[in-house]
Amino acid sequence: MKKAVVLLSGGLDSATVLAIARKQGFDCYCLSLDYHQRHIAELHAANNVAIAMDASVHKTAQLDLSLFGGSALTDNAIDVPESETTGIPVTYVPARNTIMLSLALAWAEVLEAQDIFIGVNALDYSGYPDCRGEYVKAFQDMANLATKSAVEGKTITIHAPLIDMTKAEIVTLGTTFGVDYAMTVSCYQADSQGEACGLCDSCRLRRGGFLAAGLPDPTRYKMHLGK
Amino acid sequence: MKKAVVLLSGGLDSATVLAIARKQGFDCYCLSLDYHQRHIAELHAANNVAIAMDASVHKTAQLDLSLFGGSALTDNAIDVPESETTGIPVTYVPARNTIMLSLALAWAEVLEAQDIFIGVNALDYSGYPDCRGEYVKAFQDMANLATKSAVEGKTITIHAPLIDMTKAEIVTLGTTFGVDYAMTVSCYQADSQGEACGLCDSCRLRRGGFLAAGLPDPTRYKMHLGK
Repeated sequence: MKKAVVLLSGGLDSATVLAIARKQGFDCYCLSLDYHQRHIAELHAANNVAIAMDASVHKTAQLDLSLFGGSALTDNAIDVPESETTGIPVTYVPARNTIMLSLALAWAEVLEAQDIFIGVNALDYSGYPDCRGEYVKAFQDMANLATKSAVEGKTITIHAPLIDMTKAEIVTLGTTFGVDYAMTVSCYQADSQGEACGLCDSCRLRRGGFLAAGLPDPTRYKMHLGK
Repeated sequence: MKKAVVLLSGGLDSATVLAIARKQGFDCYCLSLDYHQRHIAELHAANNVAIAMDASVHKTAQLDLSLFGGSALTDNAIDVPESETTGIPVTYVPARNTIMLSLALAWAEVLEAQDIFIGVNALDYSGYPDCRGEYVKAFQDMANLATKSAVEGKTITIHAPLIDMTKAEIVTLGTTFGVDYAMTVSCYQADSQGEACGLCDSCRLRRGGFLAAGLPDPTRYKMHLGK
């Protein structure tokens, strides 16, 4: 079986990506990042998802991005917005996907893996620049000049299978593949038990996906939310 | 003054780059990475260099790359070669410069800085792929698609002023700019006092640079080395 590194946040998208990579026959090495995010509960979710989906290994790198701050997810002084905002929201974490893909690249090289999976999505998303196809392509181009393996001919492919899918399509596909979304945590301000606020951008996109797909929403919300 | 993020390892090259950035009038925010490298003494050197050269801030990010291993610098089971080897040596750390540039990119965005300096060099070097000009260019292209700032028009420039210089040219320039190389640590297996082995690839390149430049070598070696 070919090895792949799968970036696993513990949210809905990356759980679906892990299911896709497994379905494609990859031996999956899952990588999460503890960057002292506000919603640390997502890391427990990532571990549960990795086990449930028969990943070979799950590692969590530690890198405290509050060293730099600049985001509602790494600086507690910045509130997570609970209604829609214009432009790229304050939940954007500077260079987060670049950092996570760089770590995945390092591990892939050590594993002699040539495939990296990431759950970015450029349709039902928050406008983050590092979730767009052109960014993913540019990272892949850079990666293929960056490593000893690539220079020796073992090129890297960055797979972003959700890039052009709606959230409804994502949850429909994942459900077909047996993903248990009750395990996943998307909320930016999930509590330590993984219960979701239902109000932040990430919750809104997730709720909208289940609604549009006509699938039951298994998310545990902190409060009763109208349909 | 314009702000720049300067990657500072504590070695000879990055100290010279800091001097160049200061000379160009940048307000310098220095970033080091504690990746549990074998030659941890370089981090103390980095701090001393940052202070001596009047950096505005010096931060050290913590990220244990022994999580992945695969290098003599992050895995104590792999010895540092003490004579020349063929090909890219085992001291190569998978994706290290990509990880460090990603962190610099994150901090630059928070600081609203558009300039990042890195001391890579593609002449007197160990053949590491992530020290070549084409790699640096590809990182810059990716970076300009990766961040909110770049997408909003504040593009990033990755400066690699040493890229086409010999080690002799580097130490000559740095000496002109007042760099105290006695403070720097290049050796891959420097001891806790920063004393160098004189035998590893990094020591050989450094010694050769001072010799070729006709400058006294201020490095503290563990043993007497013939000229």
